[in-house]
Amino acid sequence: MTLRLNLAGGRHFYKLTLVSSTRKLIGNVSSKSKAASGSQTTAGHLLYTLQHFALKIIDQEINSYVDQWGVCMLCVLGELFLYEGVCVCCAEYGGLGLDFSYSIAVSDELCNIRCGGIPMAIGVKTDMATPALARFGSEELNKEFLLPSIMGDKVSCLGVSEVGSGSDVYVVNGGKMSLICLPMNSPGRGSHRRKIDKMGMRSSDTAEVFFDDVRVPCKNLIGQEGMGFTYQMMQFQEERLWAVGNTLTTRDIIQDTIQYTRQRKIFKMPVLYHQSVLFRLAELETEIELLRSIAPQVALYIKGNDVTKLASMAKLKAGHLSREVGDSCLQYWGGMGFTSDVLVSRFYRDAMLLSIGGGADEVMLSIICKYMDTLPKAPAKN
Amino acid sequence: MTLRLNLAGGRHFYKLTLVSSTRKLIGNVSSKSKAASGSQTTAGHLLYTLQHFALKIIDQEINSYVDQWGVCMLCVLGELFLYEGVCVCCAEYGGLGLDFSYSIAVSDELCNIRCGGIPMAIGVKTDMATPALARFGSEELNKEFLLPSIMGDKVSCLGVSEVGSGSDVYVVNGGKMSLICLPMNSPGRGSHRRKIDKMGMRSSDTAEVFFDDVRVPCKNLIGQEGMGFTYQMMQFQEERLWAVGNTLTTRDIIQDTIQYTRQRKIFKMPVLYHQSVLFRLAELETEIELLRSIAPQVALYIKGNDVTKLASMAKLKAGHLSREVGDSCLQYWGGMGFTSDVLVSRFYRDAMLLSIGGGADEVMLSIICKYMDTLPKAPAKN
Amino acid sequence: MTLRLNLAGGRHFYKLTLVSSTRKLIGNVSSKSKAASGSQTTAGHLLYTLQHFALKIIDQEINSYVDQWGVCMLCVLGELFLYEGVCVCCAEYGGLGLDFSYSIAVSDELCNIRCGGIPMAIGVKTDMATPALARFGSEELNKEFLLPSIMGDKVSCLGVSEVGSGSDVYVVNGGKMSLICLPMNSPGRGSHRRKIDKMGMRSSDTAEVFFDDVRVPCKNLIGQEGMGFTYQMMQFQEERLWAVGNTLTTRDIIQDTIQYTRQRKIFKMPVLYHQSVLFRLAELETEIELLRSIAPQVALYIKGNDVTKLASMAKLKAGHLSREVGDSCLQYWGGMGFTSDVLVSRFYRDAMLLSIGGGADEVMLSIICKYMDTLPKAPAKN
Amino acid sequence: MTLRLNLAGGRHFYKLTLVSSTRKLIGNVSSKSKAASGSQTTAGHLLYTLQHFALKIIDQEINSYVDQWGVCMLCVLGELFLYEGVCVCCAEYGGLGLDFSYSIAVSDELCNIRCGGIPMAIGVKTDMATPALARFGSEELNKEFLLPSIMGDKVSCLGVSEVGSGSDVYVVNGGKMSLICLPMNSPGRGSHRRKIDKMGMRSSDTAEVFFDDVRVPCKNLIGQEGMGFTYQMMQFQEERLWAVGNTLTTRDIIQDTIQYTRQRKIFKMPVLYHQSVLFRLAELETEIELLRSIAPQVALYIKGNDVTKLASMAKLKAGHLSREVGDSCLQYWGGMGFTSDVLVSRFYRDAMLLSIGGGADEVMLSIICKYMDTLPKAPAKN
Repeated sequence: MTLRLNLAGGRHFYKLTLVSSTRKLIGNVSSKSKAASGSQTTAGHLLYTLQHFALKIIDQEINSYVDQWGVCMLCVLGELFLYEGVCVCCAEYGGLGLDFSYSIAVSDELCNIRCGGIPMAIGVKTDMATPALARFGSEELNKEFLLPSIMGDKVSCLGVSEVGSGSDVYVVNGGKMSLICLPMNSPGRGSHRRKIDKMGMRSSDTAEVFFDDVRVPCKNLIGQEGMGFTYQMMQFQEERLWAVGNTLTTRDIIQDTIQYTRQRKIFKMPVLYHQSVLFRLAELETEIELLRSIAPQVALYIKGNDVTKLASMAKLKAGHLSREVGDSCLQYWGGMGFTSDVLVSRFYRDAMLLSIGGGADEVMLSIICKYMDTLPKAPAKN
Repeated sequence: MTLRLNLAGGRHFYKLTLVSSTRKLIGNVSSKSKAASGSQTTAGHLLYTLQHFALKIIDQEINSYVDQWGVCMLCVLGELFLYEGVCVCCAEYGGLGLDFSYSIAVSDELCNIRCGGIPMAIGVKTDMATPALARFGSEELNKEFLLPSIMGDKVSCLGVSEVGSGSDVYVVNGGKMSLICLPMNSPGRGSHRRKIDKMGMRSSDTAEVFFDDVRVPCKNLIGQEGMGFTYQMMQFQEERLWAVGNTLTTRDIIQDTIQYTRQRKIFKMPVLYHQSVLFRLAELETEIELLRSIAPQVALYIKGNDVTKLASMAKLKAGHLSREVGDSCLQYWGGMGFTSDVLVSRFYRDAMLLSIGGGADEVMLSIICKYMDTLPKAPAKN
Repeated sequence: MTLRLNLAGGRHFYKLTLVSSTRKLIGNVSSKSKAASGSQTTAGHLLYTLQHFALKIIDQEINSYVDQWGVCMLCVLGELFLYEGVCVCCAEYGGLGLDFSYSIAVSDELCNIRCGGIPMAIGVKTDMATPALARFGSEELNKEFLLPSIMGDKVSCLGVSEVGSGSDVYVVNGGKMSLICLPMNSPGRGSHRRKIDKMGMRSSDTAEVFFDDVRVPCKNLIGQEGMGFTYQMMQFQEERLWAVGNTLTTRDIIQDTIQYTRQRKIFKMPVLYHQSVLFRLAELETEIELLRSIAPQVALYIKGNDVTKLASMAKLKAGHLSREVGDSCLQYWGGMGFTSDVLVSRFYRDAMLLSIGGGADEVMLSIICKYMDTLPKAPAKN
Repeated sequence: MTLRLNLAGGRHFYKLTLVSSTRKLIGNVSSKSKAASGSQTTAGHLLYTLQHFALKIIDQEINSYVDQWGVCMLCVLGELFLYEGVCVCCAEYGGLGLDFSYSIAVSDELCNIRCGGIPMAIGVKTDMATPALARFGSEELNKEFLLPSIMGDKVSCLGVSEVGSGSDVYVVNGGKMSLICLPMNSPGRGSHRRKIDKMGMRSSDTAEVFFDDVRVPCKNLIGQEGMGFTYQMMQFQEERLWAVGNTLTTRDIIQDTIQYTRQRKIFKMPVLYHQSVLFRLAELETEIELLRSIAPQVALYIKGNDVTKLASMAKLKAGHLSREVGDSCLQYWGGMGFTSDVLVSRFYRDAMLLSIGGGADEVMLSIICKYMDTLPKAPAKN
């Protein structure tokens, strides 16, 4: 059996000595949060309280070190790693017991990292790999896997797509109807692990892992047998909203492009000051703002509302818009945009995944149709 | 001197006997509003309280009579007319003293009327013609013009574009730097009044009115001399948000299209069930939802925030989206969509104005550029 | 039984005294055409010979009278009417015996008339109503109907869509599997004829005609019984290429827009000179040129090639492009574009039909798919 | 002084033993071409004669070896290399004396290679680096540089963009107003040569080369001093048409996508058979066909016509369309499209260059505007 794994950048993570201080920071957030039970949003923001803003540490704590560490090393940071504590609500295993609005705030903040693969690697870990464990795992299982994951001692990854027989790689066979925890050093594990060379999101590893009669104890089953797909479904909205949050890197792309085109001249005038450029950037900024404005509404999720339709819409738009922003902005960079050195070309390669992963555009459209009640009633024909 | 007037459907308005009952309805709203000082938004809506929802009378009170009265007569309704009381805050002249969120709610509700020209006619009256009077008019002037306007005894219209000499009809000459109240029966008024044949928004009259040494008393000046443009500028955001509210007719277009295409068959299958139709409608619904979601943010206008950037973005998107919805949906109606009988073809003709009036797309883009700080600093070149 | 008729502007046509002179003109074309048997294309054009260019009479003979006659009267012109002689090849009933490239040239030339409905009215007559008659009609039938049609003594119209029972107006019942000639004054003809109020193409009448046991003699059957659909199918490519030719009015729209926006100023500069306007017009001109360049290839139709795929592509693009040109250009006219006085607003209303009539976009796409061999082999599912 | 060089994949080229046989093949083309002086185009193609089709060797001679050689080695092929002889008309130095239509045919054929960088590498050599030499070079210079280049003994590259002082890398200083031949082993040449890491077109090397007082003999000057820019301008149309020819790889992308999506299933049906996929592919194929159809018209260039407007339009569209095809098709490949293994992901990365190189979109638009005569007459403002 062969699984396609999102390794969540896993091999590169390790626990840093700065963990304690970070936890303190987030601890402060947590305690403040409890104090301010009124939970009043701050002026000018419909969703965030001051506690949410406390999560904005990327610029101070991270980006100032980027030049020394290099982009590829960014993901080693315990700082980022510990965001898991923010996202997982179960306090007994190290989670901070915060609600989903903090998860959005984390996603929002992570997109300030100038590299799409890192937020993705973290998101796969915090919002795809561990939530079902946190919700349905036994106490024993959580102690063995969830606690060290939150503490930064273990790194989780997620195996979903399964290489089927024949040419169709997307068939998911019955063996994965249940969720199980599978330590990567389990006895009998196939030695072969092939890293997939991806066009973008390169700092978030994906690999084919081949299993050969790997055995795990019964207790490694999460929740009830056969409920795996249902458990994963429960976190789909979170996963999609995470994707939306990550889209906001587009703001950086716009800003970088403004800055660069103000310097670069064509026809003796800065590229930026050509009206077609000015107007296109204004249009894109408009679309980004519209996408951002949907966040407070989907946050009604916290109160138990069904936000599936809105979340699917936001995810769909996030994919489309990212591709548009990448395509349009790269153009204004000219030959420089075609080199691998600049954020805009990395973004152009990364962005394509947003329409593919976490439910492709076509899946989102089908869900929206379902909620619009436009689908044929009886035997579906398309 | 020739003025181009938006007559606000004016000639057709008259006071109905149902005025009193309507006022009562709105009075209820007003008193409830004061009672519920906590002003808690209702579950599932980020902006509206129960009082806002009380304004939702179109379906009950209006659309049920549409077939008898005919679309063209809809605008005679005192019901609609009295929305002016909701929009104008000065209680001493009959206004209900409500904040701008109610104005949004009115705009939101009016777009349920199945005809774009009527909300436009009302909007011109409530949000373009009278606000400066309400804010800066003398007590005498307000008694003479504002009070009867709110009571439904007089109808205001707005004269802005001025026919210049030569071929350029858009030059605004110095004579209009001040705002004045000009009764249409003033002595010396030119007899000629040419109604302009418009492609759409036909139930909101526009006409060229020719003046020949018309004289009005000095007291008809609104506020200070020379401040006219500034006064009008102050209500631009309201005007734009009104336009956005009106865009929401697009929801009706989508619904009508779903209903019709579920009946109409092509290749032996309902048009609706063709995936390309299903997906396109889902995409449009997504964009409409995104546009709607910006409303709560721009409503921060009530608290004195500068929402110029957001309002301009929303206005820009409203124009684009209306044109897209009209174009895409009409296609699915086939030959029937090309007849004048159906809402979708009227909408197709009306929608084009949303990108032209109330500040054209290009003006919106320039404002957004200004707020993005992308324009050349020194001498502007484009 | 109720038929929906394209009256081909029919009632307004009559024979003019200038018929003889026109025929002379076209006669010249014909004789020249026979002389120049080498049929060499002129320098700079891949398709047209000098004889084709002889058809270019609109500007000299027609448009110079437009102001006097008014747009609505244009269609009375025998000049235009006689183009039928060019399009119908059978010389024995007055046709000029020219090949299809002349039909394209006529369509190309007619689009210089500043009104979409007139070329449509003519096209319905020359390329939809009479071709089957010319090909399969008996000598007796052709003398009675085709000859006077070509001579300008009778006007043909086409009845296709049939109002079915129930709500679906597009069901075509079995009664129309054959083609028959039905004089509009046949005994027993229902008295009711309801003109349909269309959004655009208003100078080409469309009406519902109700028949009540109308009887025609057996000899009025065109060709074999039951072959009607097949006969009409044979002229589909011609009909589509005609639609493409007509699209080229877009060139006039672009030129008009250039001329107007050079005069109209915004922000103290002609609208035209704003880069976003310049570039958008250049993009549209590019697309028009691409569409035009496909004509020489589809003209291989003359040599018997199957040009179904290319013709369907051209028709599809023609519809899309017309809508885009109308939408973009109207915007640059500002409020003036929203009045009914200008070509651009008439075009905006007319253009929508190009994606609907003559096989809707979705039908073209299906044909292209068929030729691309992408459709499911066995039981079609969508 | 630092030059940015398109190395034309240069270092990898070498002369193969199969050169002689290839030359024979092309020689046959040449002699046939002279024989068939009537130059009749073949049935079904408006431009190509049988001689043009003789150039279609990629599939037989090249692609059958691709699997053994690997994509990166493809460019070593003398087969391809010798196309230079086809493109360069001067027979005395080994050129085949063919007209530009053969150059289009070569470009057309090369795009069958499943890798965008190789046609680009060849095109830079045949249509950018050597034409000015062939036209204006002295006999001595042509013997030294052109002859071995055509024979495959030397490889030319082109140095254009110059790294200026400060941050703007696109300033071209006066030193390059003349064209000179500069052997890469000239005395004094700076040792430093930095290869630029590009997002796409990776098999066509681009590098920064630093010169330090490099000296070349006076005789290396091509044509007259100071005429360099003019000479390069003369081949701009050829360069652009080459780019257009290369775009036609899009046909392969569409075909690959059809093939893959017929296998891959989603919602239990092949991805291909979803109508939204079918229709989108049909739309893209339509646009490709329109772009292709412009070729015969621009080939009037051979007869001395000014095809600048058409060539610029074709180049503009080529860029837009390539980006659209890449973006849309990759989506249908799902996760597989995001891996580096497949043609579609390489194309997605390559395609972006088509809108940037050889005159960016904005340059094309400006040229089109100039030919449309829409630009401001006197002092240009944007």
